[in-house]
Amino acid sequence: MLIIQKYGGSSLKTSQRIKAIAKRIVNLGKKNSLVIVVSALGDTTDELLNLASQVSSKPPQRELDMLISTGEQISSSLLTMAICSLKRKAISFTGLQSGIITDTSHTEARILNINPERIKKFLKDSSIVVVAGFQGATTESEITTLGRGGSDLTAVALAVVLKADKCEIYTDVEGVFTADPKILPTAKRLKEINYEEMLELSSLGSEVLQLRSVEMAKKNNIPIYVGSSFNPKKGTLILGRTKEMEEHLITGITIDEGEAKVTILDVPDKPGIAARIFEHIGKKDINVDMIIQNISHQPSAISHQKPQTDLSFTIQKGDLEQTLEEIKKVADKIGARGVDCDENIAKVSVVGVGMRSHPGVAAKVFSALAEQKINIEMISTSEIKISCVVNKKDGRKAVRAIHKKFKLGK
Amino acid sequence: MLIIQKYGGSSLKTSQRIKAIAKRIVNLGKKNSLVIVVSALGDTTDELLNLASQVSSKPPQRELDMLISTGEQISSSLLTMAICSLKRKAISFTGLQSGIITDTSHTEARILNINPERIKKFLKDSSIVVVAGFQGATTESEITTLGRGGSDLTAVALAVVLKADKCEIYTDVEGVFTADPKILPTAKRLKEINYEEMLELSSLGSEVLQLRSVEMAKKNNIPIYVGSSFNPKKGTLILGRTKEMEEHLITGITIDEGEAKVTILDVPDKPGIAARIFEHIGKKDINVDMIIQNISHQPSAISHQKPQTDLSFTIQKGDLEQTLEEIKKVADKIGARGVDCDENIAKVSVVGVGMRSHPGVAAKVFSALAEQKINIEMISTSEIKISCVVNKKDGRKAVRAIHKKFKLGK
Repeated sequence: MLIIQKYGGSSLKTSQRIKAIAKRIVNLGKKNSLVIVVSALGDTTDELLNLASQVSSKPPQRELDMLISTGEQISSSLLTMAICSLKRKAISFTGLQSGIITDTSHTEARILNINPERIKKFLKDSSIVVVAGFQGATTESEITTLGRGGSDLTAVALAVVLKADKCEIYTDVEGVFTADPKILPTAKRLKEINYEEMLELSSLGSEVLQLRSVEMAKKNNIPIYVGSSFNPKKGTLILGRTKEMEEHLITGITIDEGEAKVTILDVPDKPGIAARIFEHIGKKDINVDMIIQNISHQPSAISHQKPQTDLSFTIQKGDLEQTLEEIKKVADKIGARGVDCDENIAKVSVVGVGMRSHPGVAAKVFSALAEQKINIEMISTSEIKISCVVNKKDGRKAVRAIHKKFKLGK
Repeated sequence: MLIIQKYGGSSLKTSQRIKAIAKRIVNLGKKNSLVIVVSALGDTTDELLNLASQVSSKPPQRELDMLISTGEQISSSLLTMAICSLKRKAISFTGLQSGIITDTSHTEARILNINPERIKKFLKDSSIVVVAGFQGATTESEITTLGRGGSDLTAVALAVVLKADKCEIYTDVEGVFTADPKILPTAKRLKEINYEEMLELSSLGSEVLQLRSVEMAKKNNIPIYVGSSFNPKKGTLILGRTKEMEEHLITGITIDEGEAKVTILDVPDKPGIAARIFEHIGKKDINVDMIIQNISHQPSAISHQKPQTDLSFTIQKGDLEQTLEEIKKVADKIGARGVDCDENIAKVSVVGVGMRSHPGVAAKVFSALAEQKINIEMISTSEIKISCVVNKKDGRKAVRAIHKKFKLGK
């Protein structure tokens, strides 16, 4: 069997852990061909970024890639040494040596193509191949990196191109849970989850697996196993169609406390206004998450006022200052009454493919919150997700209430 | 003018120093084309080797190269960031990107060829090119390193292939001195020194400049300036024919306290014996430095004993145990009386091209030692060098005595 395994930085934090992982790999490698993808050791990447910030306030992205790609080169060579000292043949490869060709978008490069001949040659020679994750190279041998969590993408992409039998991602969490176990100790680990649910959960800050790697797995229908390197038997299998799928309406509940809400008051309700607003802040590279526009306030029948509406949206807190600056300019131009903001919010999202075929899920979510007297400030729904913005103090209570209402706990 | 500059690890130890060096480079770069070669920051290489030793007692050399080459990649990108933040175009290159092609002898690779097209292209574009020193790549894109001090070799090799006008090596010492200033505070910095002298001054010189880079400079007649990055105006120019050459007989005096002496007693004095001895230990990769064979003891005329001799040689102390083990085997076989050793020695060497044309230098050296009642245990001479082995306690005194005798001080 050909197995691709990826080990995250916390799995490789000390030489003891590297040796333990090497032992596991050598054992598994007795009966299987293995390609191992590694992240940088522990906090190496952050340490390197810190060095960069000391010499430059705005380092060129090409140079950032030269710098931070060393982290995975270091971990891949060390793990290879540890494997070799157990008398097993092994070899480490950089992204370039692995044949991972990317575009030239430094720090956020996309994989264009993988030429796996070199990896195949060494697998045939019964070597364990250890690939530095998170990196590739352009056709000009420029070093690129694939964005945060890019080692997951390396693993899935290699699984696709090598037609691997298994793709396993080992990290410091035991797979995907119905809610964050730090908030809700009764949260249950999911044995299986569907790609789409996973996509909705990862975009909501559940830090298990990089979003792009899930997209790639979905596109190529590669099942991914996510588990803890400390307890490899417990984990979650991410795949196209789960056996368990029919059994529960809801897969998981997430909470995001990192957003802020901005409201533009009394926006003239006419075509093109929303476009104008969001075009403006889109140009500033600010990512808008939820957008809610209520129905117009109808001015009294005898007045000559035009219809008006409030328009609210959420963004990352870090973008708030810049957003307010920009939005105030636009609000002036379009004749809105003013701009309001609230950093004190929590977004609670309920995800599950089951809600497609079962009406009434939304009502059940709202009643769970109402029973706890939690006021809902914004609502947004998609086919398999319901998100509610509540006051920050109510956020975790809301997660617990919904979790209980749908009997998700163990 | 095209100038190649190399900066050692101590020049780049902190972000402050990196920024200071960047400033100097940008200034110099206003009127010149520059290629900057860098070593790893501070003690990075030793730290990486320490990591390797934690996971493997005998790491594969190919993996060691993958690991330690990251040190220079990190320093080259950081220095480039610092230069760019001063609004000057700059780009960093790994050994591979610089077109430095080596053989496959990992950790001690030899440069086969340099394809400088990429460097030339960016120089033409008025970028400052920052090259990760100490490394190259095979034609198969395998990463190699050039051995300790290999960044010096990178700089000289680039100077050769780019036909540079100047090659400057900046380190933490102010060039080459008549003796080690730590032993002899009155030692004088040499403004110029000839390639051959530099090569002979190995123990003194090797702290300043890697010997292979001197050999390459000699072969291509490239003058090298060696100086301190903290005080760049003071330094030593190494070149083919110095202006000062006629002025002094002796260029410098070195001391090596790291050797041990081995003596094989009563070796039968017949052809082939020495070859047998040194072939044997040569196979064990033990480097022999001085070899001295005295004339035979003549046994009394009426005896039937064959002529015998004592054979002494020096080696690095670290090799002593293994050497004794091997030599005892050989001594038995060839019928020698026994093996003796002495770790308590110092080798003092006097170097100067002037001694070629001036007889009497050796006599003056010996009398300087005699005046201090220093006993000489071994003597070995070459065309431009005289080496004496003395008791370790007398070593530094011997340096001072000779230094004074030849009036080398400032």
